[in-house]
Amino acid sequence: MSFPAGNVPVKVVVDRRVKIAEVVLRCVICGLGILVSVLVGTATQVKEIFSIEKKARFTDMKALVFLVIVNGIVAGYSLIQGLRCVISMLRGSLLFNKALAWAIFSCDQVMAYMILAATAAAAQSAVLAELGQPEMQWIKICGFYGKFCTQVGEGIVAGLVVSLGMITISCMSAFNLFRLYGGDNKRKSGGRW
Amino acid sequence: MSFPAGNVPVKVVVDRRVKIAEVVLRCVICGLGILVSVLVGTATQVKEIFSIEKKARFTDMKALVFLVIVNGIVAGYSLIQGLRCVISMLRGSLLFNKALAWAIFSCDQVMAYMILAATAAAAQSAVLAELGQPEMQWIKICGFYGKFCTQVGEGIVAGLVVSLGMITISCMSAFNLFRLYGGDNKRKSGGRW
Repeated sequence: MSFPAGNVPVKVVVDRRVKIAEVVLRCVICGLGILVSVLVGTATQVKEIFSIEKKARFTDMKALVFLVIVNGIVAGYSLIQGLRCVISMLRGSLLFNKALAWAIFSCDQVMAYMILAATAAAAQSAVLAELGQPEMQWIKICGFYGKFCTQVGEGIVAGLVVSLGMITISCMSAFNLFRLYGGDNKRKSGGRW
Repeated sequence: MSFPAGNVPVKVVVDRRVKIAEVVLRCVICGLGILVSVLVGTATQVKEIFSIEKKARFTDMKALVFLVIVNGIVAGYSLIQGLRCVISMLRGSLLFNKALAWAIFSCDQVMAYMILAATAAAAQSAVLAELGQPEMQWIKICGFYGKFCTQVGEGIVAGLVVSLGMITISCMSAFNLFRLYGGDNKRKSGGRW
């Protein structure tokens, strides 16, 4: 369906803007996801104590390994979904296939919750590394591995932005899915309970 | 609007079942949220090393304090929302107020992401307590405080169930909100992009 110039319904304009915002957001998430993986994955620092070399790496903490992997997955997924959005925009089609909308919604939800869990776990490890936990005899290691901690910290902050982006995207895909179930919203009450 | 016996539309029956499921789920979340707070909050163990008493409490780990607080908030919130659902069922009204639907959706989303982040952070602390992190010189403490760790572990597992429940609820409120934006789903394409 096409509309003469100056006669495009508001709903179509809104849909178009939402779609453009989705593409931009998915691209930003993809870029930031790669940035997190690179920042945390390449963080390393060597220190010498009494002529013994000690090396800090992201693999020393399982939470950081999880963060790198999950951000890699989210980046790859966002790239694929971004391409899908661009293709559907070029074709001029909107999402009206319930099965596809359900698949996108489910994947977006899983990604959003997974990236948030990974970021929260990594942030918890980072807090322990920065402050220590004297009651558990866990020493703070960031005084010793300062550069390593700074780089990992930057990665975790970027990971938080990726999480917020994925949460926004999952709200958008919920909107795209559940509005397909509308159409009876003129009814003002729904029978006796 | 009421319907004669045997003439209730399928959509109304489905809406009613979704509403009942929501009430049950909110009640389960409320109960489990309280259980998590009690289990983790009351976990304590005293051990003696060379006549010096050492006591493990949930306040020794900030992640556990966060878990207790967030579960308390989620339990209280679920109780209020559960009561709202019961009242709307007794009144026989369905949700058609967009502002209220947006408020419920936003609160449910915040609760779901908050409880998941709290559970992930607590789980990360629990893994460190159970396995230690030799590369960081963080010792495993669960061999020493076995009873304390078991009780906290049970609380974290229950917290995971609360998280899954809140995720399901947030999908339900997304459905309740975004279907209000439907009604044009008979249109098969949306103009040129």
